[in-house]
Amino acid sequence: MGGGDARVRITAAAIAEQVGGHVVGNTDAIVFGIAPLDRAGPTDLSFLAHARYAGWFSTSRAGVVLVSPELANTLGTPSTRVVVEKPTQAMLRLLAHFRRDEPRPLGVHPTAIVATTAMLGDGVTIEAYAIIGDGVTLGDRAWIGSHAVVGEGTTVGRDVRFYSHAVTYAFVEIGDRVVLHSGARVGRDGFGFVQSDHGLVRVPHPGRCVLEDDVEIGANSCVDRGSVDDTIIGAASKLDSLVHVAHNVRIGKGCFFAAGVGIAGSSRIGDFVQFGGQSGVGGHVNIGDRVSVAARAGVISDVPAGITVSGFPARPHREQLRSWSALARLGKIIRPLEQMLAERADS
Amino acid sequence: MGGGDARVRITAAAIAEQVGGHVVGNTDAIVFGIAPLDRAGPTDLSFLAHARYAGWFSTSRAGVVLVSPELANTLGTPSTRVVVEKPTQAMLRLLAHFRRDEPRPLGVHPTAIVATTAMLGDGVTIEAYAIIGDGVTLGDRAWIGSHAVVGEGTTVGRDVRFYSHAVTYAFVEIGDRVVLHSGARVGRDGFGFVQSDHGLVRVPHPGRCVLEDDVEIGANSCVDRGSVDDTIIGAASKLDSLVHVAHNVRIGKGCFFAAGVGIAGSSRIGDFVQFGGQSGVGGHVNIGDRVSVAARAGVISDVPAGITVSGFPARPHREQLRSWSALARLGKIIRPLEQMLAERADS
Amino acid sequence: MGGGDARVRITAAAIAEQVGGHVVGNTDAIVFGIAPLDRAGPTDLSFLAHARYAGWFSTSRAGVVLVSPELANTLGTPSTRVVVEKPTQAMLRLLAHFRRDEPRPLGVHPTAIVATTAMLGDGVTIEAYAIIGDGVTLGDRAWIGSHAVVGEGTTVGRDVRFYSHAVTYAFVEIGDRVVLHSGARVGRDGFGFVQSDHGLVRVPHPGRCVLEDDVEIGANSCVDRGSVDDTIIGAASKLDSLVHVAHNVRIGKGCFFAAGVGIAGSSRIGDFVQFGGQSGVGGHVNIGDRVSVAARAGVISDVPAGITVSGFPARPHREQLRSWSALARLGKIIRPLEQMLAERADS
Repeated sequence: MGGGDARVRITAAAIAEQVGGHVVGNTDAIVFGIAPLDRAGPTDLSFLAHARYAGWFSTSRAGVVLVSPELANTLGTPSTRVVVEKPTQAMLRLLAHFRRDEPRPLGVHPTAIVATTAMLGDGVTIEAYAIIGDGVTLGDRAWIGSHAVVGEGTTVGRDVRFYSHAVTYAFVEIGDRVVLHSGARVGRDGFGFVQSDHGLVRVPHPGRCVLEDDVEIGANSCVDRGSVDDTIIGAASKLDSLVHVAHNVRIGKGCFFAAGVGIAGSSRIGDFVQFGGQSGVGGHVNIGDRVSVAARAGVISDVPAGITVSGFPARPHREQLRSWSALARLGKIIRPLEQMLAERADS
Repeated sequence: MGGGDARVRITAAAIAEQVGGHVVGNTDAIVFGIAPLDRAGPTDLSFLAHARYAGWFSTSRAGVVLVSPELANTLGTPSTRVVVEKPTQAMLRLLAHFRRDEPRPLGVHPTAIVATTAMLGDGVTIEAYAIIGDGVTLGDRAWIGSHAVVGEGTTVGRDVRFYSHAVTYAFVEIGDRVVLHSGARVGRDGFGFVQSDHGLVRVPHPGRCVLEDDVEIGANSCVDRGSVDDTIIGAASKLDSLVHVAHNVRIGKGCFFAAGVGIAGSSRIGDFVQFGGQSGVGGHVNIGDRVSVAARAGVISDVPAGITVSGFPARPHREQLRSWSALARLGKIIRPLEQMLAERADS
Repeated sequence: MGGGDARVRITAAAIAEQVGGHVVGNTDAIVFGIAPLDRAGPTDLSFLAHARYAGWFSTSRAGVVLVSPELANTLGTPSTRVVVEKPTQAMLRLLAHFRRDEPRPLGVHPTAIVATTAMLGDGVTIEAYAIIGDGVTLGDRAWIGSHAVVGEGTTVGRDVRFYSHAVTYAFVEIGDRVVLHSGARVGRDGFGFVQSDHGLVRVPHPGRCVLEDDVEIGANSCVDRGSVDDTIIGAASKLDSLVHVAHNVRIGKGCFFAAGVGIAGSSRIGDFVQFGGQSGVGGHVNIGDRVSVAARAGVISDVPAGITVSGFPARPHREQLRSWSALARLGKIIRPLEQMLAERADS
């Protein structure tokens, strides 16, 4: 990975063509890898997107550097530069060239335990110590990592990838091209208890737990199954690491959840909703389409479509900013205000 | 699970009898499963608890629907209705009928590794690739899931369930009927370091880590062991997913921790305390019995018994509400207030 | 562990000598273990550091108790007391005597799967069901716990410890004496997506993921690899449980992260920075050396070296305290202030 990987050879001219930029310097300069400015060597591509990294640029050993037009003449050792409007975006587009894919093992590892009642599609990979439960269906080319557990009765679509140690409980429904990262836990009975004659007992959760096509669940994230309703994560919604989705939550399509987000029970999230890191939603809350929930915001009441909310309790971001600004200024005037009121009361 | 599971057959009349309601429509209608209104078919039981779901009700194919008295005449396709005061609660009571239990494998799987010094009670289940360490005791009917690890010297009570991938470190004490969900990590040395001649070294943690009877630890939750004291989670306390309990924390009986809660070191939590999602408690804080800590609250000082606290720093909820309301209004008046003070200073 | 462990025998006189205190009572009293006051027996050492535990002291059965000078004469059953300035610190120094080390198994367990292309140093331990991928290098005395996975091409230094269920993805670089706790997930591609002709696709992450010497990653914590830059955790930085570090984050040396902290992408953290529990840092933020981020603080803009920040949005702690105090008082005066402004507007 990075500088040492000779998998790809690409010239400065070819880079410029791919990203729609132009070369200043040696158009034949060849790079094999990518690396940040301070680590890059003569066969690495790097980028300079912001003046604050000019210090690294000044002494960088990078062979080729993507630079924005306004930074094209920054002083520094790299002599071959590809000038392009948005160097970071250009770099992101080029990354796939430099990423070495992990080789995919073929077939079922002899230590994997596959129930005789499981149905495996064509070309599936099941790695060492994985367990495929009774009645499981795996779609074509599903790739189940080492130690992963696919619980009894779970259906898994095509081209799905479970990384090592991903676990589904029993009876989960997983669409095509879904990715479960390491330590993801999907389909646990939700956190519900009721009083009974024998004390507190768990509410059974016969509801479903559905991950639609192209969903991604991050490392160590947890999605519970439904009790009186289903838990559904809509197509192409992506969860980062350490996210929790409780029972009976329905999430629409194309949503993004940054790391550390928590969604409490029975909430409904629309399509294309974005959640910043460590934000949360209380129980039984409805959030409309294309809402943006800022990092660390806590939503405890319904949010109409299309707006941005922040803070706790979450409010429209513009109002919240006004309150934060007012609060910062209040510290300086609270005492005079109290005095003024006291004098007024006396007079 | 859900609509397709023919495990149970129950008539509308029997449902009404169980929940103390009455049937409008066909008392002989039979359902096999439960499902939310929008997914239910003719052999499913569903429920309508709130007018906002009337839209789903209008076209639902559910065979029988629990409805509240005020919604009993809602227009919709379901012709057989069981009218009951609280349809959601009624549904929760009925759930156990529709939950198919996972079949329990018998005995010790040949791939499980059980130390010769471990003592196993009657009727224990140990699933594939689980590891039972030296000197472990498992009570009768303990059920250890696949890949779970029971660390050296750990004692496990009767009727305990470790789901797949649950791990205890060495020397943990686990009572009867405790549940550890997938990815729970119990008994790690706490996060403590001291300066030594060789730099920073970890504080050893000879203290205990005790989960009393009927405790539940959620998926990917972490409980550390004690250093100078013990970490104790009291009987029947329940932790949801992604909760962290640090070293030397003592938690009373019957507490509830929603997902994402963190309790810092050496804090003391009374009995029947409730923690909302993503709330936290600082180190060395005492929280009295029956306190309620609202979602996202951060408690940094002692809380007397019986009150509800919210916000950060957490304060009594009523005061906090007044502050939040004041803050929302402050945005509109901060500038006039500043002007008034400026004029006053000038005059 | 605790009272029952006869591994060490130490007299009150020896304890006093080690901690620089003096004995009141029987200098020959022998203890074998340590325990908190309420659990200690006649062969246990305990401590009384604060008057609020005097109740437990009054009836404690502890054989020897460390007490501070001001509490040396507290009424209570323990007759042998070691009087020392700081009993808690003294206890921490003594803990290592009472901690029984887990025995280290030797060599490679027959169920471990070690790639033929992996290179193992001298004296490594690989426990049951662990997997060592292609091209992995393990330094001398590395200890890989059960079910742990060391991904393809990962380099692991000397005296490293992976606890059970720790996982690295492919191509991670791990220094000497690094500790990965149970369920740690290191080296996952970061959470980045770009629009393509085929819809949303993941940004490849060819950047590195480096844990320098003496780093510790807590239970179920997650560290992503870099995309356009590297993710680097500097030497001797320590992460508690359930922490998330996103892609391209660079963390300096000697930092501490309490449980539940999240650092968003491309942020730069200096040396010796401290993060309180559940705090967070937004993307592309720079934090200077020796900054202290209070528990639950959310940092969204750069912080210069050496200061303490708190709250959300995080501000210098002193300012934040002033605002919190003002906010608490505002609730009582907001209405009179609004009335005053209304009257003023009328006049």
